[in-house]
Amino acid sequence: DHLIICGFGHSGQSAAHEAVARGTPPAAVLVLDVDDARLAAAAECGYIGLRGDATREHDLADAGIERAGAVLICLDRDDSAVLAVLTVRQLNKTVRIVCSVSEEENIKLIRQAGADAIIAPAIVGGYLMADSMQSSLIADYIEDLMRSDGRVRLIERLARADEIGKPMRDIGPGLIVRLHRGEQRIGFWEAEAGIVRAGDRLIEIEPRTTPVHR
Amino acid sequence: DHLIICGFGHSGQSAAHEAVARGTPPAAVLVLDVDDARLAAAAECGYIGLRGDATREHDLADAGIERAGAVLICLDRDDSAVLAVLTVRQLNKTVRIVCSVSEEENIKLIRQAGADAIIAPAIVGGYLMADSMQSSLIADYIEDLMRSDGRVRLIERLARADEIGKPMRDIGPGLIVRLHRGEQRIGFWEAEAGIVRAGDRLIEIEPRTTPVHR
Ligand SMILES: [Ca+2]
Ligand SMILES: [Ca+2]
Repeated sequence: DHLIICGFGHSGQSAAHEAVARGTPPAAVLVLDVDDARLAAAAECGYIGLRGDATREHDLADAGIERAGAVLICLDRDDSAVLAVLTVRQLNKTVRIVCSVSEEENIKLIRQAGADAIIAPAIVGGYLMADSMQSSLIADYIEDLMRSDGRVRLIERLARADEIGKPMRDIGPGLIVRLHRGEQRIGFWEAEAGIVRAGDRLIEIEPRTTPVHR
Repeated sequence: DHLIICGFGHSGQSAAHEAVARGTPPAAVLVLDVDDARLAAAAECGYIGLRGDATREHDLADAGIERAGAVLICLDRDDSAVLAVLTVRQLNKTVRIVCSVSEEENIKLIRQAGADAIIAPAIVGGYLMADSMQSSLIADYIEDLMRSDGRVRLIERLARADEIGKPMRDIGPGLIVRLHRGEQRIGFWEAEAGIVRAGDRLIEIEPRTTPVHR
């Protein structure tokens, strides 16, 4: 159940470090890259470095693709990314594939190729730039939410038995910001629908500093 | 008080659209780019396109840099970005400069050159990829927070008179997630410090759907 990172550029490195910060052991991170300097950088972090190309079946097989828990594809080119997604999906029907994309118009293609989640860093970067036009506080907060260090983090979890029947606003010490019930997304401002039911998935801002109760 | 976007690649386009979604009139967006196809794309969105190079004083002067409200620098290369920031800052000491950077190691340099806010899309993309390893709900929520469309948005505002003396958790209909008091950042879980004071800046998740009160 290891994590395969295809491409150890900036996105791949940042994804690997964040995965480790969230609890993946460094020795369970396998970096597949064609570049020796990047593989050396991966080894320095305690990750397993494997020289290879994520668009080649043989190299993915060497990376143990059939027993991987998740595959993050962070290649420089979208055409390589599409190929990598197709190849990974062919070798493992169920593994979770997260893929980075440069061009918005390739998102559809990559989804069609079999990716479960697609991230477009350039587009997201643009949102954060617009968020920073007046002040940096919004972008700073969003970065804190995304990263597991800092003061808060955003997590997803199943409703606990003692939370059922409560309005989502009354749950603590974290803040429940959204609730998923089947296909429904329920906001904290929805009085009736916002009463927690069994099976609901909660999106919670969790304080990383333990609250001090006096 | 127009907005200058230097570089109309994916980040520049996404920043421009988001700025407009937040209220900047399209006619107040000036796109500076050397590429004619990109300038045509800018014109199609109702922005002013100006052929030019953001590292050249003359071109920035043509873009009205001395009366700009903000400058977003979204160039492909970090060395160009550093030069652009230096040149903009030389021509306008006070304009807000937001700059996109590829390499983490260049963040310091760009700050030193005079940028007020720096966004590293590749790094941020890596965080979101790690956030998507189990499910897409977290990354989806973060994207909704960043963008002004969708169901919620994250805003920053001054505490209102009627909020002073209240615990931040009791303020509604939005959720106050953080409070800035001078240099202090106060979390929603901090019972005593979390009482709103005059002059506090609030970070709020604002519902975009008006709540229905029956
Ligand atoms: Ca955090
Ligand atoms: Ca939104």
